[in-house]
Amino acid sequence: MIKKLVIFGVGLIGGSLALALKRANYCEEIVGCSRQASGLEKAVELGVIDRYTLDPAEAVKDADMILLAVPMGAMASVLSAIKGHTSADAVITDAGSAKASVVAAAESVYGTVPENFVPGHPIAGAEKSGVEAALIDLYVDHKVIVTPLAHTSRDAELRVIAMWEAAGADVESMDVENHDRVLAATSHLPHALAFALVDTLSRSEVSEDIFHYAAGGFRDFTRIASSDPVMWRDICLENRDAILESIEAFQKNLSSLHDMVAESDSSGIMDMFSHAKSARDAYLKKQS
Amino acid sequence: MIKKLVIFGVGLIGGSLALALKRANYCEEIVGCSRQASGLEKAVELGVIDRYTLDPAEAVKDADMILLAVPMGAMASVLSAIKGHTSADAVITDAGSAKASVVAAAESVYGTVPENFVPGHPIAGAEKSGVEAALIDLYVDHKVIVTPLAHTSRDAELRVIAMWEAAGADVESMDVENHDRVLAATSHLPHALAFALVDTLSRSEVSEDIFHYAAGGFRDFTRIASSDPVMWRDICLENRDAILESIEAFQKNLSSLHDMVAESDSSGIMDMFSHAKSARDAYLKKQS
Repeated sequence: MIKKLVIFGVGLIGGSLALALKRANYCEEIVGCSRQASGLEKAVELGVIDRYTLDPAEAVKDADMILLAVPMGAMASVLSAIKGHTSADAVITDAGSAKASVVAAAESVYGTVPENFVPGHPIAGAEKSGVEAALIDLYVDHKVIVTPLAHTSRDAELRVIAMWEAAGADVESMDVENHDRVLAATSHLPHALAFALVDTLSRSEVSEDIFHYAAGGFRDFTRIASSDPVMWRDICLENRDAILESIEAFQKNLSSLHDMVAESDSSGIMDMFSHAKSARDAYLKKQS
Repeated sequence: MIKKLVIFGVGLIGGSLALALKRANYCEEIVGCSRQASGLEKAVELGVIDRYTLDPAEAVKDADMILLAVPMGAMASVLSAIKGHTSADAVITDAGSAKASVVAAAESVYGTVPENFVPGHPIAGAEKSGVEAALIDLYVDHKVIVTPLAHTSRDAELRVIAMWEAAGADVESMDVENHDRVLAATSHLPHALAFALVDTLSRSEVSEDIFHYAAGGFRDFTRIASSDPVMWRDICLENRDAILESIEAFQKNLSSLHDMVAESDSSGIMDMFSHAKSARDAYLKKQS
């Protein structure tokens, strides 16, 4: 149970958590905070949060749980604004897509990451954003990864885990570096490819025909290119090294495929495609 | 109306057309032909075709419409097998995903492409294949492209168009080269990227974690990597030049993105992602 939950950034991610925790009667009070009142007013109107304030220090007063669901570039400034104003028993967590970057932001503000700061990442989202897009079931059967450091308080970690579980999520722990590598491969790289693909096609001489004749496979394949460009730009900047590593591994493989096609290397192409299909089918089977 | 429709290769594509034309009462008789009896027996059992034969010459006897829905690598051999056995008023069409290659196959058999041969391509499919996957509504509101040559009979073209329209499709005409470029970009390139991506990830040191933490966006993005590897290998071989051109344009763009990420070029990344999102949203809007 949480007495006072403060959510910085009440958009899709923060708003969906608030909705789910309200349903579970998990919080006595949920307070929103961000730099602008408009989204927060909307969040109160929609019943997502109980009240809001634009003052971070006021927001965290007596809070026992603080969630940073702001863009990653804003983590350090929120932490600076609440530093010295949080209760001794308050737990701080975040929902950023890259963890080394958030850890670095916390270090920049606190020197060392506080024991009660538990970096976290809900593996859920949608191409829509904003509090209007919040979904009460967004986290049900979705994974949330927490990446505690060696000195993170075990009690703080358990409280963060319990909160996400109350929202319906399956929570797993992982180390920061592994998280960033895995997410670069499984989420950040696909987004980069989708954006780069749609951008490439839109610049083609025959782009009008391309989009006219695009069918269902294309719609699914490019769905993630309708995601928020600001958020994904930030992720590229904040998880740069792991993303570069992923892009390079992909470039190498695409280059092999290019050469196999150029050389009409039938069995080489067949090997790659069959191997991919087996891996994808095995993944699907595990999911179901 | 068709008196006798012969379908070579009664799988997802041929079988779905047969089901739709039966519903429309558009054919007096639908006969299947391929090299193996097992799939054809299944197709009769499922009510997809009326009867079958393994003998191409026998199959096309008195047929007024002949559809080649076999893998592109098999087009020339089917055309050779039916050459000299078709009626004077028979129209021949196909469902291959690359048209220059089918035209070349027809030329290799006939010297010049017969006037009654109308290359065609239904822009529909699924990652499943085989007659069991046939869907009566596969072509409803889907596009079929016909790519008649300068000397193709207008009457033959109209008969092919009418057949696909009877199955619920919107039929459009296009020239062969443009078709192959557009399809390379909109369909063949995305499939190549999906196969290459899943193959890349499955070869990663952390591939187990990658597939474990992959979420909904990943599932959609990689759906087409569960497609039939044989069919897609053939498409890569048969539409080689246009696919290489598409891959190269993409590689160039991905390389720019890589460099922008490496240089933390925030506004460059933002430009690409915003441009892609606008193009994708505009495409979606047109679709709906």
